[in-house]
Amino acid sequence: MSHHHFDIDVVVVGTGMAGLVCAHRLRRHGVDVVALEACHQAGGRTVGVEIDGEGADLGGQFIGPGQDRVYALAAELGVATFPTYTAGANVLETETGRLLRFRGMAPKLGLLTLLDVARARFRLDRLARTVDTETPWHSPNASALDGQTLRSWIDRTVRTRSGRRFLTLACQAIWACEPSELSLLHALFYIKAAGSLSALTDFEGGAQQDRLDGGAHGLAGKLAAGLGAALRLNAPVRRIERDDSGVTVTVDDGTALRAKHVVVAAAPALAARIDYHPPLPAARDNLSQRLPMGSVIKYIATYPEPFWRTAGLSGAALSLRGPIALTADSSPRSGNRGVLIGFVNGATARDLATRSPADRRTAFLDALTRLFGPQAGTPVTLVERNWNEEPFTRGAYSAVFPPGAWTQLGPALRAPVGRIHWAGAETSPRWYGYIDGAVRSGETAADAVAQDIHPSR
Amino acid sequence: MSHHHFDIDVVVVGTGMAGLVCAHRLRRHGVDVVALEACHQAGGRTVGVEIDGEGADLGGQFIGPGQDRVYALAAELGVATFPTYTAGANVLETETGRLLRFRGMAPKLGLLTLLDVARARFRLDRLARTVDTETPWHSPNASALDGQTLRSWIDRTVRTRSGRRFLTLACQAIWACEPSELSLLHALFYIKAAGSLSALTDFEGGAQQDRLDGGAHGLAGKLAAGLGAALRLNAPVRRIERDDSGVTVTVDDGTALRAKHVVVAAAPALAARIDYHPPLPAARDNLSQRLPMGSVIKYIATYPEPFWRTAGLSGAALSLRGPIALTADSSPRSGNRGVLIGFVNGATARDLATRSPADRRTAFLDALTRLFGPQAGTPVTLVERNWNEEPFTRGAYSAVFPPGAWTQLGPALRAPVGRIHWAGAETSPRWYGYIDGAVRSGETAADAVAQDIHPSR
Repeated sequence: MSHHHFDIDVVVVGTGMAGLVCAHRLRRHGVDVVALEACHQAGGRTVGVEIDGEGADLGGQFIGPGQDRVYALAAELGVATFPTYTAGANVLETETGRLLRFRGMAPKLGLLTLLDVARARFRLDRLARTVDTETPWHSPNASALDGQTLRSWIDRTVRTRSGRRFLTLACQAIWACEPSELSLLHALFYIKAAGSLSALTDFEGGAQQDRLDGGAHGLAGKLAAGLGAALRLNAPVRRIERDDSGVTVTVDDGTALRAKHVVVAAAPALAARIDYHPPLPAARDNLSQRLPMGSVIKYIATYPEPFWRTAGLSGAALSLRGPIALTADSSPRSGNRGVLIGFVNGATARDLATRSPADRRTAFLDALTRLFGPQAGTPVTLVERNWNEEPFTRGAYSAVFPPGAWTQLGPALRAPVGRIHWAGAETSPRWYGYIDGAVRSGETAADAVAQDIHPSR
Repeated sequence: MSHHHFDIDVVVVGTGMAGLVCAHRLRRHGVDVVALEACHQAGGRTVGVEIDGEGADLGGQFIGPGQDRVYALAAELGVATFPTYTAGANVLETETGRLLRFRGMAPKLGLLTLLDVARARFRLDRLARTVDTETPWHSPNASALDGQTLRSWIDRTVRTRSGRRFLTLACQAIWACEPSELSLLHALFYIKAAGSLSALTDFEGGAQQDRLDGGAHGLAGKLAAGLGAALRLNAPVRRIERDDSGVTVTVDDGTALRAKHVVVAAAPALAARIDYHPPLPAARDNLSQRLPMGSVIKYIATYPEPFWRTAGLSGAALSLRGPIALTADSSPRSGNRGVLIGFVNGATARDLATRSPADRRTAFLDALTRLFGPQAGTPVTLVERNWNEEPFTRGAYSAVFPPGAWTQLGPALRAPVGRIHWAGAETSPRWYGYIDGAVRSGETAADAVAQDIHPSR
């Protein structure tokens, strides 16, 4: 055997939750790792920020039943979970600005609309059950399902204008895009990957059921701290060379690391911007041209107390009027201050981003005031995170498959290319796009790479 | 005024037809230019190759009425044009392998199918006339047209199975993608940008009417030669920094050029892989995540003589059986040897690419033999160009807009970002995706930049 020099066993590119978990787990497998992060802090789409002396999540923050791997990770890291505040009524704002209070996920939209929406939800769930999440392109009728947008399906299936409008809002809330941008097959895959539509939309019993003490970013923080010197910040990867024996990963400043494997834990659209030598196979490259990120601006508004609770409101709202698509109570477990989060998604996020910071603040607070009263208009602090502006994320919550991508090029999403492996919430067949999916993808990549390095274990 | 050092007035990134024309025209405006090409030769999607001592086009090669700018360029460069050979019958191969000879664009598909296809063509043309090519997002009903795939429209509009199959083949031939991948609005925009559907599909009177003496790549060759030392080959651009006074363009080898402006003349998906400082605005970045290239493998088969002509065939064929979608006679003007070109497009191109070179050769020649007889199976030379594999093109003929892209982010396609300007066949509202569109885009960018540099002229 020829002699090969390696700086390290494995380089992990990107330290969102997938990359962090991958590096953490590789070390537990006895594998030497360096994790490279482009930004000044680890966390990716679960990064945190300090607001008025307390941590807050700029990205993903909720977890729920079925997300076993993120619960296990939280337990391992000693981070407690607690239920999202859901007492009181939710609010739906109609297009004309009327406020409807409701409990659970069924706003009082009028009987015809309710039936229409319920029927659409039933059909989506039934169709989703036919999708194979490991190989969506092999699902029955995959070609037809992937040949149309979710909008085409809504236009054909939903009879009332208000029902179509409500399902459009649901799409914006769930996928952070317009129904026109989304393959029906991807929507169904995504539902199946979570279990059901209500698993996606619900607080209790769904993906918004629980929160993490101190914030979801605490998981990233603890994992990053655990990596110590194995984590290198401000190190955007520009080039990955591969040959039969290993890989050479080059950072922006020219530093190069020789390793046996590399795990690229970045969303496909971002992974595509690395310069690969030899070039990636056409299928992988062409797939990565087709997977844009959704569009989200997340707002965090803090108050001296959660005043909406005393008014009998949960803090959860949906708005058909906009620009806010949905809100939730994100107060700390103690309830010693009030925190509302609000999401501006899809086309509305793109529109709002063209306005001045002052205009955006006004538009957001006006909308929040309509939902929760005048107190909502004067937060102690208002923080805005436009994920589309982040140079190493460029959108959220996750990659949105347009029609044709799954059936034309799906197999290239997860398949390693020689010694290059892919991780990230987009590669998980379970809880695609969620923190739990990211955790699973990091674990899967770590186990595959470790098996190659230490086949005896 | 502060002193600024510039190496050059303008850097042009990419020397496909758009970049070459841009650089050429800037010099005629008295502007100092450097044009940077990633590959070892200029030409981009109109690059040439020598086969048996004669030049051949690996990419675009036809021109036709309405493409005034490429005709003007050919005249300026002293390249003569000549009509594509169209005497004799065209051939349509049915799914079951039956060969139908026909003249013009109307194969003998059976009366019902013919009527069905004619009706669909009429409707597409009528809808296309409603599209505003400068601002497709402002077209009447743009949201609904951009909310569906071409496949959804075909499924809804075309009544016969054979009609749907024929329109699918037309889509593969015209856009090098499946109808599931394409926004209906983009298909209509593309038709309108050419004038009509028959302008796209026809030889005589359409975009395949004429050819260029010595090949279309001769235009690129002459433009490149004219640039002399201003053209730098093997110089992939990795980074573009911009500030109020200029831009700094850095090549792979670390060489940096300071200029007043930069024109990025690359397809959006490729332009997105350059590292921009400061990062591009979200709208431009997010659009470039959404514009994948079509999928094409082009074959060039050479023979001692154009034997099909003596058999009464034009050399033009369409196949519903595949893997070839379409062929054409590409013999030199003299007719002193025979050249057939064949295109394997869309899903078929992706499938064929997974097979071995020997298998691909056999599959192609078997299909060609079915169309043109046993002589077709023994070419002197067979050259294959899989555009999806080319690291600095990554597909062809052009970027394919999925649903939602034009209406959500269209305005970012052509808008300069500070001193960064965009060119390429994708930026032209006339003949989008064609050589003529590339020429127009290069001229437009050159004129805009020159006006800024020498406002007095």
